[in-house]
Amino acid sequence: MASKASAQDAAAAPQLRIPVLAVVGVGLIGGSLALSLKRNGVVGKVLGISQDPASINKALELGIIDTIASFEQVSQADVIVIATPVSAFESVCNAIKPFLAPRTIITDVCSTKQQVAGMARRSLGDRVRQFVPGHPIAGAETSGPAAANAFLFEQKQVILAPLQENAPEQIDLLTRLWEACGSTVSSMGAAAHDRIFAAVSHMPHFLSALYMYSLLDAEQADSKLKYAGSGFRDFTRIAAGPPVMWRDIFSSNRECMLEEITRFQACLEQARQILESGNNDAFEAWLAAAAQARRDWENPPS
Amino acid sequence: MASKASAQDAAAAPQLRIPVLAVVGVGLIGGSLALSLKRNGVVGKVLGISQDPASINKALELGIIDTIASFEQVSQADVIVIATPVSAFESVCNAIKPFLAPRTIITDVCSTKQQVAGMARRSLGDRVRQFVPGHPIAGAETSGPAAANAFLFEQKQVILAPLQENAPEQIDLLTRLWEACGSTVSSMGAAAHDRIFAAVSHMPHFLSALYMYSLLDAEQADSKLKYAGSGFRDFTRIAAGPPVMWRDIFSSNRECMLEEITRFQACLEQARQILESGNNDAFEAWLAAAAQARRDWENPPS
Repeated sequence: MASKASAQDAAAAPQLRIPVLAVVGVGLIGGSLALSLKRNGVVGKVLGISQDPASINKALELGIIDTIASFEQVSQADVIVIATPVSAFESVCNAIKPFLAPRTIITDVCSTKQQVAGMARRSLGDRVRQFVPGHPIAGAETSGPAAANAFLFEQKQVILAPLQENAPEQIDLLTRLWEACGSTVSSMGAAAHDRIFAAVSHMPHFLSALYMYSLLDAEQADSKLKYAGSGFRDFTRIAAGPPVMWRDIFSSNRECMLEEITRFQACLEQARQILESGNNDAFEAWLAAAAQARRDWENPPS
Repeated sequence: MASKASAQDAAAAPQLRIPVLAVVGVGLIGGSLALSLKRNGVVGKVLGISQDPASINKALELGIIDTIASFEQVSQADVIVIATPVSAFESVCNAIKPFLAPRTIITDVCSTKQQVAGMARRSLGDRVRQFVPGHPIAGAETSGPAAANAFLFEQKQVILAPLQENAPEQIDLLTRLWEACGSTVSSMGAAAHDRIFAAVSHMPHFLSALYMYSLLDAEQADSKLKYAGSGFRDFTRIAAGPPVMWRDIFSSNRECMLEEITRFQACLEQARQILESGNNDAFEAWLAAAAQARRDWENPPS
């Protein structure tokens, strides 16, 4: 009879129940989502769909999915999660469309949202209203179903980038789905999403990979790498991420990335000139501003 | 009576003993070295010298040093470790020189070695034979005596960059000193050292700081940073490092850094062109080479 329910009570109250979940692509993200929803009792049955026999068999063996399914069987699904690289997204939509029940909600986990929304619209036509674009901000430098874990999304952020055709109940259901995985959900437009993630996610990956690549060209790269320490380790961790996934992220967010790269090139040339000039005070001020920005991110000033 | 002693036996056998150690600069590195040598019973008494009253009092309070000392008292020291930023190194040498006993060995922990060797030669004259340049590959984004810990150097690498004037016994003693802290010690020339560490240590810091700085200029930087995830966290960790220390590292290794930056700028422009061209195969090959290099570093191919 408490008038003010806690957030936990509210989340627990009308238990979210998805009788049939279909996951297309059973790698790190799709697999982890299935495991998390199973663990929390949200889903009844998980159908797994993949073009890769090794992956899908592994997912079945690991209990990530209950059944290996074909695209025809998505007709049974209450929710379909498309968890493939961006480059496979449109062909998955094409394959789903003939079997899509009117009540089914589709979402995805791709790291870019404008291109994905465009592909969905082109493929699904007016059925696009059943698709709510999504992006969990979670990952690892590992991939495949063996890397999946039920806790990947705990205390992580998930962005939904709803289409104007989406209904509030669809957005509400997906919000509760991700909250059941321990995530915090927010919404924004696809263009804002892609600009923001070019800056805070795709650029770090690009620069980390670029730095690793630049070492390959260098004289005595092997002997240099022997002396790399913990700063190097953390700075380059993301560069080991799956190349196909990242190729798709960069190419599907090309315009935003080229803007970020241009801005970075200007900053790099400016910093180079400060270093070359020998103006130690200016260089220290530059480093101090960067260090302060990083500290403020970790411990926001109150 | 075993004819083949294990590495551990060998290290334990003739116990290294340094009756009096003087540490100039009692921050993260100097403080951690003192704590580690105390913990392992290598040092009798630790004299602490610092220009910063707050630091030196904190070091005394934390048991990092046994006595607050003046430069005159280095005459008692068997080993002097100069653990200040590079910019203070030469003035410390000048302050030490009048009180330096002939048996004393001096070393340092600076991240660059050519400039330090030059400053030592200029300051110490023919007493430079008592100085063996050193560089422990260990650090953190924290600083000051409160950040010091006795385990900082465990399983880390230490580089000695001996001068031609150094005697084998000096190098041997410092090797055993660092081994007592759990480190692996190797030797190389100062020029090779500075080239290698520009590539694998100073460039990552430069790029991480540059990336943080570039975000400050960006529109809506604060709202973007809210969505930064674990990739961002690791990629930018080092950017929070102490600005004065890093200013000194960059300015004392300026030539090597400018070479590295020039090479990186060329790689960046090349990668930008691949992305802009829309040649996804070339872009994937580029990402795959970077990812493989990072994976090989973590798990070297046998």
